[in-house]
Amino acid sequence: MLNKDHPRYQSLVYREKIVEAHENGILADSGMIAHGRGETFDYLIGEKTTPNSQNTIDVAACYFLTRKHPVLSVNGNTTALVSEDIAKLSELLDIPVEINLYYRTPERIENIERVYKDLGVKEILGTDEDDFIDTPNLNGPRSPVSIEGIKKSDLVFIPLEDGDRAEKLYDLGKDIISVDLNPLSRTAQTSTVTIVDNIVRVIPALIESVKKYENYDKTDIQEKIDLFNNKTNLNIAIKDIIKRFE
Amino acid sequence: MLNKDHPRYQSLVYREKIVEAHENGILADSGMIAHGRGETFDYLIGEKTTPNSQNTIDVAACYFLTRKHPVLSVNGNTTALVSEDIAKLSELLDIPVEINLYYRTPERIENIERVYKDLGVKEILGTDEDDFIDTPNLNGPRSPVSIEGIKKSDLVFIPLEDGDRAEKLYDLGKDIISVDLNPLSRTAQTSTVTIVDNIVRVIPALIESVKKYENYDKTDIQEKIDLFNNKTNLNIAIKDIIKRFE
Repeated sequence: MLNKDHPRYQSLVYREKIVEAHENGILADSGMIAHGRGETFDYLIGEKTTPNSQNTIDVAACYFLTRKHPVLSVNGNTTALVSEDIAKLSELLDIPVEINLYYRTPERIENIERVYKDLGVKEILGTDEDDFIDTPNLNGPRSPVSIEGIKKSDLVFIPLEDGDRAEKLYDLGKDIISVDLNPLSRTAQTSTVTIVDNIVRVIPALIESVKKYENYDKTDIQEKIDLFNNKTNLNIAIKDIIKRFE
Repeated sequence: MLNKDHPRYQSLVYREKIVEAHENGILADSGMIAHGRGETFDYLIGEKTTPNSQNTIDVAACYFLTRKHPVLSVNGNTTALVSEDIAKLSELLDIPVEINLYYRTPERIENIERVYKDLGVKEILGTDEDDFIDTPNLNGPRSPVSIEGIKKSDLVFIPLEDGDRAEKLYDLGKDIISVDLNPLSRTAQTSTVTIVDNIVRVIPALIESVKKYENYDKTDIQEKIDLFNNKTNLNIAIKDIIKRFE
């Protein structure tokens, strides 16, 4: 169907995945609109992983390798775009996948759970059998955190998360790695490590980076973490966007 | 349903309109994603009409008042968001509405035609009864231009248009007024007058501006047009976005 010569071919491929996931009950209407927001930001950063983003991905890999209980928290958009790579990362690090939806319905939870089960993910949290931490200040019919998934975790990976929940996780004292194309967002500003890049490039790059850094000494990995400053990272990301307009 | 105190209340209202139009067969899937792209650009310009945009809207009003056959070319997103104001503008200027869809289906054309008929629009072009100019170089199942709508027009108003069709209209020698939140887009770069602003603010402001300038002398109106430079306009729009990041 799609013409490979189209200047925006890659972007159209992912757009089709999003539309398909919407039809399959994985993605809410709002998820389609959210994808469009991401398209604009990706366009602004030039649709490529900048050297700064690659460094941030390496730092994220080092966090995964030094924490005891990381968890991969996924939503409909993440599932629509990169479920296979999420399953690979979960296997590589031997860590659970937690399903967390802004617009939570039993059907969507089930549909997403099936995707990861079919991909062989061993531990899936955040399903309707889980208990949830009570967080009355969050809007919408969503669960912020499953007890199993979040309470005992020391590192939460939240690609494509909304600001309310990111702040809640911050209040709970968790280390947060987020993927957010908007360096100005609350999620970006609240995270311990913010990867300002498109999730479709981030997860494969993160897998490669984990494979590389797992051969390093613990002290080298810790140094990589200690040298990182998220404020500096976000400032560089903002400058990269401004360059695009100039 | 929506909480008026939410910091993004207005944005959520328009998001609901988009979802509703999608359910009513007015908007294609891609239109939902396109709305998301627009949300990001609107966020970047601060979700308000800048002084530069207000000036550009005034110039657009002057164009409408000095051309013989302007036409308002609308798509699904425009219809979802501002059909009532489009009908008002059509009545005020006594000019036709042309339906032009990127993903053209008889059902969507019919649904959109009904919206404008119900709003009392006298002349609706681009329906399936029209003939179309043959333009084999345009991708997708869409018509670039209806003969009635475009051939005899001297000014085409294209809110939310794609770059391919904008370039085609340019090749046909038409004056083009576009509404485009991305000052870097081909549509923005190709237009005679590019209003870099959200359509939900533009159309009401354009109506007010037409009412104001229709009382002016023809020479004053022409001077307003002659003083305008779209390159300068776009450069200011880009600077306004950069300011937002700084």
